[in-house]
Amino acid sequence: MAESLSSPSGKAGLPPGALVHVGAQPQTAGRVTLISYGPDHCIEREVHTVDDILAGRREGDTAWVHCEGLDIAPLLSEIGARFQVHPLVLEDILNTHQRPKFEEIDNCLFIVLKTLRVDGSQAVQHEQISLLVFPGLLITFRERRDDLFDSLSQRLAQGRGRIRSLGSDYLAYVVMDSVVDRYFTLTDALEETIEAVEAHLLGRPRAQTFATIQRLRRELVFIRKAIVPLRELLTALLRSDTELIGAKTGPYFRDVFDHVIRVIETLDSYRDLINGMLEIYLSAVSNRMNEVMKVLTVFATIFIPLTFLVGVYGMNFDYMPELRWKWAYPVLWLLFFLIPAALLLWFRRKKWL
Amino acid sequence: MAESLSSPSGKAGLPPGALVHVGAQPQTAGRVTLISYGPDHCIEREVHTVDDILAGRREGDTAWVHCEGLDIAPLLSEIGARFQVHPLVLEDILNTHQRPKFEEIDNCLFIVLKTLRVDGSQAVQHEQISLLVFPGLLITFRERRDDLFDSLSQRLAQGRGRIRSLGSDYLAYVVMDSVVDRYFTLTDALEETIEAVEAHLLGRPRAQTFATIQRLRRELVFIRKAIVPLRELLTALLRSDTELIGAKTGPYFRDVFDHVIRVIETLDSYRDLINGMLEIYLSAVSNRMNEVMKVLTVFATIFIPLTFLVGVYGMNFDYMPELRWKWAYPVLWLLFFLIPAALLLWFRRKKWL
Amino acid sequence: MAESLSSPSGKAGLPPGALVHVGAQPQTAGRVTLISYGPDHCIEREVHTVDDILAGRREGDTAWVHCEGLDIAPLLSEIGARFQVHPLVLEDILNTHQRPKFEEIDNCLFIVLKTLRVDGSQAVQHEQISLLVFPGLLITFRERRDDLFDSLSQRLAQGRGRIRSLGSDYLAYVVMDSVVDRYFTLTDALEETIEAVEAHLLGRPRAQTFATIQRLRRELVFIRKAIVPLRELLTALLRSDTELIGAKTGPYFRDVFDHVIRVIETLDSYRDLINGMLEIYLSAVSNRMNEVMKVLTVFATIFIPLTFLVGVYGMNFDYMPELRWKWAYPVLWLLFFLIPAALLLWFRRKKWL
Amino acid sequence: MAESLSSPSGKAGLPPGALVHVGAQPQTAGRVTLISYGPDHCIEREVHTVDDILAGRREGDTAWVHCEGLDIAPLLSEIGARFQVHPLVLEDILNTHQRPKFEEIDNCLFIVLKTLRVDGSQAVQHEQISLLVFPGLLITFRERRDDLFDSLSQRLAQGRGRIRSLGSDYLAYVVMDSVVDRYFTLTDALEETIEAVEAHLLGRPRAQTFATIQRLRRELVFIRKAIVPLRELLTALLRSDTELIGAKTGPYFRDVFDHVIRVIETLDSYRDLINGMLEIYLSAVSNRMNEVMKVLTVFATIFIPLTFLVGVYGMNFDYMPELRWKWAYPVLWLLFFLIPAALLLWFRRKKWL
Amino acid sequence: MAESLSSPSGKAGLPPGALVHVGAQPQTAGRVTLISYGPDHCIEREVHTVDDILAGRREGDTAWVHCEGLDIAPLLSEIGARFQVHPLVLEDILNTHQRPKFEEIDNCLFIVLKTLRVDGSQAVQHEQISLLVFPGLLITFRERRDDLFDSLSQRLAQGRGRIRSLGSDYLAYVVMDSVVDRYFTLTDALEETIEAVEAHLLGRPRAQTFATIQRLRRELVFIRKAIVPLRELLTALLRSDTELIGAKTGPYFRDVFDHVIRVIETLDSYRDLINGMLEIYLSAVSNRMNEVMKVLTVFATIFIPLTFLVGVYGMNFDYMPELRWKWAYPVLWLLFFLIPAALLLWFRRKKWL
Repeated sequence: MAESLSSPSGKAGLPPGALVHVGAQPQTAGRVTLISYGPDHCIEREVHTVDDILAGRREGDTAWVHCEGLDIAPLLSEIGARFQVHPLVLEDILNTHQRPKFEEIDNCLFIVLKTLRVDGSQAVQHEQISLLVFPGLLITFRERRDDLFDSLSQRLAQGRGRIRSLGSDYLAYVVMDSVVDRYFTLTDALEETIEAVEAHLLGRPRAQTFATIQRLRRELVFIRKAIVPLRELLTALLRSDTELIGAKTGPYFRDVFDHVIRVIETLDSYRDLINGMLEIYLSAVSNRMNEVMKVLTVFATIFIPLTFLVGVYGMNFDYMPELRWKWAYPVLWLLFFLIPAALLLWFRRKKWL
Repeated sequence: MAESLSSPSGKAGLPPGALVHVGAQPQTAGRVTLISYGPDHCIEREVHTVDDILAGRREGDTAWVHCEGLDIAPLLSEIGARFQVHPLVLEDILNTHQRPKFEEIDNCLFIVLKTLRVDGSQAVQHEQISLLVFPGLLITFRERRDDLFDSLSQRLAQGRGRIRSLGSDYLAYVVMDSVVDRYFTLTDALEETIEAVEAHLLGRPRAQTFATIQRLRRELVFIRKAIVPLRELLTALLRSDTELIGAKTGPYFRDVFDHVIRVIETLDSYRDLINGMLEIYLSAVSNRMNEVMKVLTVFATIFIPLTFLVGVYGMNFDYMPELRWKWAYPVLWLLFFLIPAALLLWFRRKKWL
Repeated sequence: MAESLSSPSGKAGLPPGALVHVGAQPQTAGRVTLISYGPDHCIEREVHTVDDILAGRREGDTAWVHCEGLDIAPLLSEIGARFQVHPLVLEDILNTHQRPKFEEIDNCLFIVLKTLRVDGSQAVQHEQISLLVFPGLLITFRERRDDLFDSLSQRLAQGRGRIRSLGSDYLAYVVMDSVVDRYFTLTDALEETIEAVEAHLLGRPRAQTFATIQRLRRELVFIRKAIVPLRELLTALLRSDTELIGAKTGPYFRDVFDHVIRVIETLDSYRDLINGMLEIYLSAVSNRMNEVMKVLTVFATIFIPLTFLVGVYGMNFDYMPELRWKWAYPVLWLLFFLIPAALLLWFRRKKWL
Repeated sequence: MAESLSSPSGKAGLPPGALVHVGAQPQTAGRVTLISYGPDHCIEREVHTVDDILAGRREGDTAWVHCEGLDIAPLLSEIGARFQVHPLVLEDILNTHQRPKFEEIDNCLFIVLKTLRVDGSQAVQHEQISLLVFPGLLITFRERRDDLFDSLSQRLAQGRGRIRSLGSDYLAYVVMDSVVDRYFTLTDALEETIEAVEAHLLGRPRAQTFATIQRLRRELVFIRKAIVPLRELLTALLRSDTELIGAKTGPYFRDVFDHVIRVIETLDSYRDLINGMLEIYLSAVSNRMNEVMKVLTVFATIFIPLTFLVGVYGMNFDYMPELRWKWAYPVLWLLFFLIPAALLLWFRRKKWL
Repeated sequence: MAESLSSPSGKAGLPPGALVHVGAQPQTAGRVTLISYGPDHCIEREVHTVDDILAGRREGDTAWVHCEGLDIAPLLSEIGARFQVHPLVLEDILNTHQRPKFEEIDNCLFIVLKTLRVDGSQAVQHEQISLLVFPGLLITFRERRDDLFDSLSQRLAQGRGRIRSLGSDYLAYVVMDSVVDRYFTLTDALEETIEAVEAHLLGRPRAQTFATIQRLRRELVFIRKAIVPLRELLTALLRSDTELIGAKTGPYFRDVFDHVIRVIETLDSYRDLINGMLEIYLSAVSNRMNEVMKVLTVFATIFIPLTFLVGVYGMNFDYMPELRWKWAYPVLWLLFFLIPAALLLWFRRKKWL
């Protein structure tokens, strides 16, 4: 079971509010980057304390503090204290078994997402991404480091598009959009597998096909669990009347919402397709088995009367006139060919072959 | 997989807002037509720029700008700029993987539909149709050119019915009505296939019947995915208090809504029918197989005692009085007929045959 | 496919608003009856124009205009003009593929119902009934003529009950009540068939039983499609604050609503029962087949060791002492009875027989 | 079909408002009891007219009029007239095919319940109980007489608990509570049957087990149909702002609501359990059949090479040296034991036995 | 049936309001503990009467009265009288067949939870926990004594975290959090079993695997029944505007809500997984059976033509020239090897082996 379904009870028993990382992922050494930007500039540097952050951020700039790796409890509690974040939010950031959620808390928005990635061995890896949206400041937390936000950093550095002229809400949108875009990569990969399985189904069904179908189903369960709550999350976000999301950014979040709905509907179609493939597979296996059994039975049936006949002339009665006839034996051999031929003809007429 | 289920991730990585056509369809060279009409006239001409549009439209007229083919990014961005359309809407028009949706955006309504068509090889083709409804101006975008709007153009040219005396909202209704009407053509085609399959099921089930049933199921998944969101779309449209839809046109949109509900209910009945047919097919296949196996087994069973008997008189004991009897052999042949007859009678009484 | 599931696309392409009858039913020649009544009188006459109607209706009376057969386009358009009925309503009346619906339109209520009838050959026939409720005037439209409203006419003529002293809203209730009452006749017929099938299932399952179960399922799909929308229809009617339904008649419509819910729940139970019967049937068929195969296999199994034995003593070895023994042959015959007996005993102990 | 699923159409055709008993139950001769009580007294007497009721009820008392048996049309219409009950309510009381419902009508509450009872032959009997709640007066109607309300009468007579000091609303609660309590008796009976079936399933599955499972499923359909509407009924009752239910009695009705939810959830678990048992049964039957067939096939397989061997030495070739060997025959007998032993060993290693 | 699904009708017939313990659990002798604490102290003592409680609680302190074992009717009725608790609430505390619920009653909140525990024999044990939340006072009732609240008591005694400085509402949260945390222990245990079953499924399916899968399904039914109502409970609690829950504690309850949703979604995934495993099991069993039957049938098929051949040369015709040939017998033995080899080759080419 590569993906754990439940949340390990590792933290059961701890008092609520203890800042301990709870999750199955091996830890990536934490790195915290600050990107401070305005319409005409963009400065990126590594930071270690909240003071670094405050010092590195220019007056009037939008700042993005991006934490990769979750062994950052000290920094996190400092953030909690300075930016007045509720202790439960801090806990949720470190416990990577959260379900996607959106919360408006006093002075900030708290968003938890799951990003999904197909790794080399075709297993689905998930990672938790948390966002804290303050006015003019976005703090994001990831478990690992990969290329997910590379294009985003580049865009910020190059100042392409609207990104530098809009605030932390637009930045939060771009982050969520990157995460949701990756879901499409995932559905593409799923679709490729489904197409491959469908191609196999047209040929001879193999036990491995069955295993793949079951693996697909299982993966769909996990993927849906990570993505479906986003619908609710974004509905809540769009309905909320928070001032942290400006009127200009609203349509962008609605766009993300549309994408999520599309992903979910695609997953739903996959579920239907996979169930259909399962039926086709089972029907094919059963057909094949039936064919084999039928042919073998027909084979046996054809020999049954012949074996009876040879038995008859193996009997030792004193008075069996045929045994004396000269042409009896050749005639019998003729029968040995005629009887099967007649039976085969009959079976074919009955459409049994 | 003729119809792609997911949206290819081709655009993943691009900054939001890039006007690039994203879709699987081979492109049709774009053609943009302007139809400007009032109660007593109707002028149609091809246009290439927004200035053409503005010039070609008479004061007080209703104008319909109809774009076929999506290689029109320059015109589109010009439209975006002049008519103040949100950049995300422009993107959605070019990305043909949208789900049907309705949006009220400041000064216009944005509607995305899917039209469905059964092509020569019985596959379902879908195409995205987008509508931008402004006061006195309707802009529509299609991926291809076919006869979908021919009768509508004719009606406009001939001035039949109410069409020329009502505004752009009524025109939008007529466009949507044309799209929805084509769904009925589709359900008719489906129904024909279903009837054909039902006729086959009464005869001898063939493996091909199974394939057709599975294809029907698969197609229903796609068709539902394109049509079901329309229910929601029209509910939102009917509930919205936009001034862009006049009181007079309201009932017409309610009528389209009724049609959509009817299509969806029809598709639901098809789903039930197809599931029923699948059961009938599987039951028929299994019955057939059972019949064959039963008959063959009965056949074998009848010969078993005979073969035993001939074995008995093939034994070489010194003292076997029957072997000496003159009538033993003929009597045995009699038994070879009586025993099967008795067995057959017994089987028939037990209703095994 | 006796009942068409989809709406034929016959009208696709016509401009909205064309008054053409669209439907599969052979047409009944139209007849229009006017019944004008008050607490102490009731006059019935055939009419042909709206003028006839206006002339035939006494001051202060309630009038019921009842149209049977739908070849009445001229009268209908006259009604539309005189009573200011929306053109789409007129279309809906003639297009008998409507789903049941309720609409409040300016000055009148528009209700569409489906009446269901089991005909001689056990097929379910449906017919569309439309009602236009004006103050003091009810206009109803049917496709055919049968005894559905006979008892209602009689009650009006004889002045039994409350009917004559209440207005057109009460009359509309009585019409709907007649239609819904006929559903009970239908569920009674279904229940009879279900009971018959259940009786058969206890005996020997026949292929015909399977066909009947499948037919029942199919019919349920159609029947539900005609009846279930009534729930929504009546909810809308009861929630509406129209002045066309008086406070006194409200409880009567709630009563119809209760009946409809009861019919729907009954249909739901039937669905469960039918699914259960299908399972019983399939299980019975499979049991039967298993029984047959088992008995035949046991039969074969019993003869296998005997055939082996007779083979042994058919061998031609020079040195086989048993062949010389005098009692060998009779003892073998004893074995031929003892071995099967022992095997049968063993099988029975194992509960295989 | 002991329980009728649909409402017989016996009343179809009658004018609405005819007071005729419609129901499948054999009639119990009606008996009407008046219990008039206050905090310190309780008088019970049989009554026959509304005048009896009015005369028997003491000033300031709470009165309970309890009708058993439904051949009471004259009294009922008298009650209708005197207490101004809507004619449709009177009809509903006599038509025992109502679904459970709650209605606020002008001056009274109208509640219809279904009580369920397992009779001697394990069939579920249902009976309709209607309540009319007036200020200070409760009228109840039953179809039959049994011990359902005995403990309630005793409590009233003995003045135990709160019952005598609270009004007609509390009395209505106690009546409903008695009805709902009986559902628990029913679920206990169901649970006993389910446990018995589960015990059987662990042993050898019998065809009767299948029948019992199917009967349970069928009964659940009926029971749910009688109980599930109570959820809706009580929600409506708790939400209504009627003055007929005092603030003090509110919590009691909420308690009944909790009980009903519990019953429904219990029934839902039963449904899951029964479906699980069905699967276990089918799997057990199929396993058993497989076992039998496998053993018999193995049995046949073991004899096949032996029969071949004896056939070989039954051949009549002139030159077959083994036939002359002295030890050939005993060696063959050795083979007749070694070959099966080897085959059995092989089968066991393959885990086929 | 270790867990009873329905509520025994033991109390049916008792007047509402009788304080009798109703439940299947063997009783634990009651023990009532009072913990009175403030920011800087925490006193724990055993109490027996309400007077003890009142005496033991310091002015301004928060008090937690914790009752283990339900044979405390006298104390309970005293609590009812002194703290003005509604009689139905007192009843519900003693009747351990409640479903989880939340009620706001005048001066207090009443919460019922179910705690679940896997005992030694892998069966799921449930226990009812009731909470009465007053300002500054929390009373909890359990059926048994175990280590569930041990860490909570310790935290109170040691004054760790926020617990001592917040009121009875926070204490109620901590109690609920402990209960919900234990669900994760349960889902971990379930997951272990599921993983073990999945490992078995990859190997050879055993009948025991089927039993385990069915047991898991059954347990999921029970577990869901205990946990799912918590969603509704917490929704009601979070929506209520009670003053008993301070603004500071709100987020904590939302946190519990998130945990509950997570547990429910995890259980839903388990349901999907278990259904998948069932399918894999059945498919594996059927595959295995098919394999065995196929191999045995092939085995038989191979011997059929050989047995026919030896029969031929066992015939006693006078004129059978082969019988005289010297090499006939050895050639036949060659055939006895060639024919099977050819058949096996053919079967393998047909992919039947």
